[in-house]
Amino acid sequence: MDFIYTLNLVGTVVFAISGALTASDYKMDGFGSVVIAFITALGGGTIRDLLLDYHPIGWVGDPYYLYAVLIAVLLSYLFKRWIVKLRRTMFLFDTIGIGLFAVLGTQKTLGLDIHYSIAMMMGVISAVFGGVMRDVLIGRVPLIFRKEIYATACLAGVIIYVLLLPLALPYYLTLIIPITFIMVIRLLAVKYEWSLPGIK
Amino acid sequence: MDFIYTLNLVGTVVFAISGALTASDYKMDGFGSVVIAFITALGGGTIRDLLLDYHPIGWVGDPYYLYAVLIAVLLSYLFKRWIVKLRRTMFLFDTIGIGLFAVLGTQKTLGLDIHYSIAMMMGVISAVFGGVMRDVLIGRVPLIFRKEIYATACLAGVIIYVLLLPLALPYYLTLIIPITFIMVIRLLAVKYEWSLPGIK
Amino acid sequence: MDFIYTLNLVGTVVFAISGALTASDYKMDGFGSVVIAFITALGGGTIRDLLLDYHPIGWVGDPYYLYAVLIAVLLSYLFKRWIVKLRRTMFLFDTIGIGLFAVLGTQKTLGLDIHYSIAMMMGVISAVFGGVMRDVLIGRVPLIFRKEIYATACLAGVIIYVLLLPLALPYYLTLIIPITFIMVIRLLAVKYEWSLPGIK
Repeated sequence: MDFIYTLNLVGTVVFAISGALTASDYKMDGFGSVVIAFITALGGGTIRDLLLDYHPIGWVGDPYYLYAVLIAVLLSYLFKRWIVKLRRTMFLFDTIGIGLFAVLGTQKTLGLDIHYSIAMMMGVISAVFGGVMRDVLIGRVPLIFRKEIYATACLAGVIIYVLLLPLALPYYLTLIIPITFIMVIRLLAVKYEWSLPGIK
Repeated sequence: MDFIYTLNLVGTVVFAISGALTASDYKMDGFGSVVIAFITALGGGTIRDLLLDYHPIGWVGDPYYLYAVLIAVLLSYLFKRWIVKLRRTMFLFDTIGIGLFAVLGTQKTLGLDIHYSIAMMMGVISAVFGGVMRDVLIGRVPLIFRKEIYATACLAGVIIYVLLLPLALPYYLTLIIPITFIMVIRLLAVKYEWSLPGIK
Repeated sequence: MDFIYTLNLVGTVVFAISGALTASDYKMDGFGSVVIAFITALGGGTIRDLLLDYHPIGWVGDPYYLYAVLIAVLLSYLFKRWIVKLRRTMFLFDTIGIGLFAVLGTQKTLGLDIHYSIAMMMGVISAVFGGVMRDVLIGRVPLIFRKEIYATACLAGVIIYVLLLPLALPYYLTLIIPITFIMVIRLLAVKYEWSLPGIK
């Protein structure tokens, strides 16, 4: 599982950078940036673990997640101009991170012998609730409630993941296929400005 | 306890419809509506269970709560015009739901051998914190902090419930009396626009 | 530990009064004041205990914390004019409370055999997250993300606390030194309007 652990840390750094950039847009100071970066990166998984009574929560038992966030905030300070130019690449990493967290969150919940529908929900929570908490803390209505269909893309991805399970494909394929799917949907959604219908 | 379980699911549907209508007022899409409906209906009980370390949390261990929310959102989509006309009836159901959740939340906490005052607080949290979380997520100051005295009505109801306990009345009466009381207070409060005094 | 317990209750009263005054600034009624006072005083410790899976959470197992909050709200109602005049003294108590909660939160976490860096983070969470939750509930961007460097002062305080531990000083000194340090930093910060640099 060393590979998954490494992916998790990389995902944490990427999400945390995105959080630190948001904090900077809102003119927050060093402390605020660290809090926002931390919550963006690790908030979703924390909520999932609390709901599942899964302890210790990843970052409580292992300080490397905290270090990953601190490094991300430091990088954001030092290389802000450069990172902002790479927004496209950042967006790509962000999407990979979201897909990864969605699939891993679902997998973890299924391992606790919990119903598929709830496991898929936990996957989506892992991927998107960090962003929801970040938005609430900085005082804006969570983006995810208004624009982008990326939560829906996440849901579609974890459905695919669950459907692939009985096929007993090689482990890495059951990860890569839904993550790729989430990425493609999200990229298309941004390109063609897709959105879901509301209640008229 | 089948009767209580059924009441719980019905309460979940009613609360979730009220959540979905709010989401629709705020022009949210399908995903946002489900999240807001879910949190309105099940958020209060979730907070209570987390605070009490009571696991599995109802909806984590039983997917029927999630299904109840999804059905409620679907109904809100399909019959919005019709439901809005029934606001009075909805309000009545909503009040029954709140009374029920308050009393059941208190009962559950007392069963864990926790002090009466904290159990009453947990009852009120079960009934009102879903709405508080909904309001925070959609970016408005929780209604309950400003208007309506229905949180206070809830508190009065659970005090009555606790006072009835030593009388060893038939089970259904210890439920119906406080719930009726909460309903009457809330209806009168809306009719006569009661509110509590603040600190001058 | 009776001394620590008493300090905890006094800290709760002081924080709760500060919460009740904020609620009053926002024209909240009796119920809202109690909720805001409770969350301001006990929210940070609650989050910490949930993250650490430490149960029962202080106030869940011991109603005296709830009573402390109720007394504080009552005092705020009765003596508002008088308390407002004492804002300076209140601020001093508030700072002592924050320092105390930060150090005690760190100590508690270390007792659970958790890494120093996470323990310090839990100390800061104990001290400041009640205020963050209060701000979110009343609909303002958490003050701590914008002004004052008191979260940073807290962090500096808990670092000093952790550095003092190997010296095996008398217990009360390992409490008093970091708390005094936090107080001095915070008072100087307010006096000279210090703030941290953001990401330019």
